Amino acid sequence: MNTRVQEFPTKRPLDAKARKALAIRIFDDLREMSKDGPGISRATYGPGETAAMEYCAAIAEEEGLAVHYDAAANLVIELTGKDPAAPCIVCGSHLDSVPQGGNYDGAAGVVAGLLAVIRMKRAGLVPERTIRVMALRGEESAWFGLCYLGSSALFGGLAADDLERPHRSENRKLGAYMEEAGADIERISGGERLVAEDEIGAYLELHIEQGPVMVARDFPVAIVTGLRGNIRHGEIRCVGEAGHAGAVPRWLRHDAVLATANLLGRYDEHWRVLQERGLDLVLTAGMLNTNSADHAMSRIPGECTFSLEIRSQSIETLEIFYQLMRSEADAVCRERGVTFEFDRRSLTPPAVMDKSWIDHLLATCEKLSLPAETIPSGAGHDAAVFANAGIPSAMIFVRNDHGSHNPLEAMEIDDFLCGADVLYEAIQNPPL
Amino acid sequence: MNTRVQEFPTKRPLDAKARKALAIRIFDDLREMSKDGPGISRATYGPGETAAMEYCAAIAEEEGLAVHYDAAANLVIELTGKDPAAPCIVCGSHLDSVPQGGNYDGAAGVVAGLLAVIRMKRAGLVPERTIRVMALRGEESAWFGLCYLGSSALFGGLAADDLERPHRSENRKLGAYMEEAGADIERISGGERLVAEDEIGAYLELHIEQGPVMVARDFPVAIVTGLRGNIRHGEIRCVGEAGHAGAVPRWLRHDAVLATANLLGRYDEHWRVLQERGLDLVLTAGMLNTNSADHAMSRIPGECTFSLEIRSQSIETLEIFYQLMRSEADAVCRERGVTFEFDRRSLTPPAVMDKSWIDHLLATCEKLSLPAETIPSGAGHDAAVFANAGIPSAMIFVRNDHGSHNPLEAMEIDDFLCGADVLYEAIQNPPL
Repeated sequence: MNTRVQEFPTKRPLDAKARKALAIRIFDDLREMSKDGPGISRATYGPGETAAMEYCAAIAEEEGLAVHYDAAANLVIELTGKDPAAPCIVCGSHLDSVPQGGNYDGAAGVVAGLLAVIRMKRAGLVPERTIRVMALRGEESAWFGLCYLGSSALFGGLAADDLERPHRSENRKLGAYMEEAGADIERISGGERLVAEDEIGAYLELHIEQGPVMVARDFPVAIVTGLRGNIRHGEIRCVGEAGHAGAVPRWLRHDAVLATANLLGRYDEHWRVLQERGLDLVLTAGMLNTNSADHAMSRIPGECTFSLEIRSQSIETLEIFYQLMRSEADAVCRERGVTFEFDRRSLTPPAVMDKSWIDHLLATCEKLSLPAETIPSGAGHDAAVFANAGIPSAMIFVRNDHGSHNPLEAMEIDDFLCGADVLYEAIQNPPL
Repeated sequence: MNTRVQEFPTKRPLDAKARKALAIRIFDDLREMSKDGPGISRATYGPGETAAMEYCAAIAEEEGLAVHYDAAANLVIELTGKDPAAPCIVCGSHLDSVPQGGNYDGAAGVVAGLLAVIRMKRAGLVPERTIRVMALRGEESAWFGLCYLGSSALFGGLAADDLERPHRSENRKLGAYMEEAGADIERISGGERLVAEDEIGAYLELHIEQGPVMVARDFPVAIVTGLRGNIRHGEIRCVGEAGHAGAVPRWLRHDAVLATANLLGRYDEHWRVLQERGLDLVLTAGMLNTNSADHAMSRIPGECTFSLEIRSQSIETLEIFYQLMRSEADAVCRERGVTFEFDRRSLTPPAVMDKSWIDHLLATCEKLSLPAETIPSGAGHDAAVFANAGIPSAMIFVRNDHGSHNPLEAMEIDDFLCGADVLYEAIQNPPL
């Protein structure tokens, strides 16, 4: 890849046309080097993620930017600010992908940060604060069943247990991959914090939208208000009573499927009402199955399992709706003579984006004649880790069709450049 | 088994005590000869069914009753009546079972018929009409995917195609098993009727109840009003749109699971209302599944499949409810932006039991100081084939706990003897 990188002229100011050409070239190269069937694969702490980092590092070095890897093997590209001792601004995202995923999920944020520091460097601008572009390791949970590995490690958020997690298909553990990538697994598994308390003053992340809202509403960019947290149950089991589909009358039935349909219908209706009252909420039962060992067309289903998750930007909404869910389940049990067995509940708290930064980013959009729109993030991002570590954080979303985690994701390069411009402008005069 | 059969004294009148002893011995012998794990297995047109027939035939021959196998290899035990040329009364049921099923499903009816003719024979009674006790082949669909084989063959109801059906686990076809059992497969596959138009004047069948109603209501016996027919879809596919569970807001979702839950909830509510208005109906969605190839806890389910059957004694109720089902599916499609793809619908028409025989059997119950109660049959039986062939038919149900098609079925022998008494009394003075 080095031969390609050297094709970029290093001195010419990075005007709009050059930025577009550079962005296209980087995305094309990243796609080419990680092609996998119809999509791309860049495995967490694996060769694909590392190669993408080395490629970005080589571009930065060619531009005369300082490059290093931190103790979690995250890539750090630095442009020193006027006061090197003041807390820095991190422009971060990730370079790993889900298996056979899309090229822009994560990479867009790293490339936007890279473009910003190259643009400043070539223009001879020294920023107020040191800018660190970070490619954070392992944002996707697809490879080791745990997300935000690189950012969590920064704040001492990984435990020794986590490093024992097996790879999704290879017979090795996360710790081995981390060590191979150059991470200091002793410090990480000991829960040691890898960045000082006042080292980072703000965290900014540009990311493609993973839902359809911006396409539907026609916004090229939008500013994220918060990242939804969630409450999840991987498996809720409805236990009724199997029986002959023709021979058991209604009054003697304990049909697990109709009980579950009734419960989900109640949840759906409560959701509709709460949404109309302005509360932020989404609800999904992504997996729903009768027991294939004994289900049949002519057998009353005695068992049915389903997953359930609710997401909201508000922890209060999550907890209120969860209590409602449990009490409705109790009501269906009483009315239909079934039981619902809930497995262990997991809670990921919502992350609130920083008000000053949101206002600053919206003002920047206006300055650039872009629509100044806000949007909640339904998906999780490294920004949640930084925000929940107490660092003022903010996100810029770029319009993207067909969602993410699939080869069809479709971000227009012009939309990306709008988002990259917002990032570039915003870090010139940070609200710090 | 012949040595055991010869233990029965052949001359003594079959009083209540002797009937009980004989019934227990026959059921015990049948269970012993067809034990399979926790239950019993008597394969359709297989060695298990044939052995059970030979055992019953040997008992009948010992009693001096005429025994033969008809062209479909059904066992026929005959006690000639006063007018041998007049249409006979058939007391039938089946001796096959589902794999690892229960001992009484089917066998109870054959044993009741056998007890009745032995009792008459020993008492020197010559019945008004010739009585034929028939063990009909292949009532269970478990072995070849088709039920009522022996009774359908009687009326030319099997086609050449049907004989090509493969055994559930062995690499041979139905026709080969039928031939081996002695059936005339040329006549059968040609659709030839094996009984003359006026040969059978009535069909009576005693059977265990396969639902929980009689246990719940405390009836040892009940008279069947009709056999529910059904309309079935093996697979209905709800197609919505998959998406990120957190990133897609309610107004842009096309969630296949919530759409299906909504549809099933509507069906359930219509059923409740129709039932309250006195219509006979049951509804079952026995199998319900999201697509395991791509479903996930955090993915909006884009697809969901389910089976659906409705059963009723009334063809009008079936058709009215079916139209309601289709129009509700259309409504959910419109409201939620999903589609429901229905596979080919199958219809099995209900079978109405003969009014004169129902009244006669109820009067017989009263005469015997038994509760005179009626019940619909939710399950199918050979009686449906006879009724739909235009032969006045009726059924006596015997209380049975734990349903059928499982090793736990639990008929009390005293309840069986009550039912057998009703059958015996009823054929003395038939309403013909």
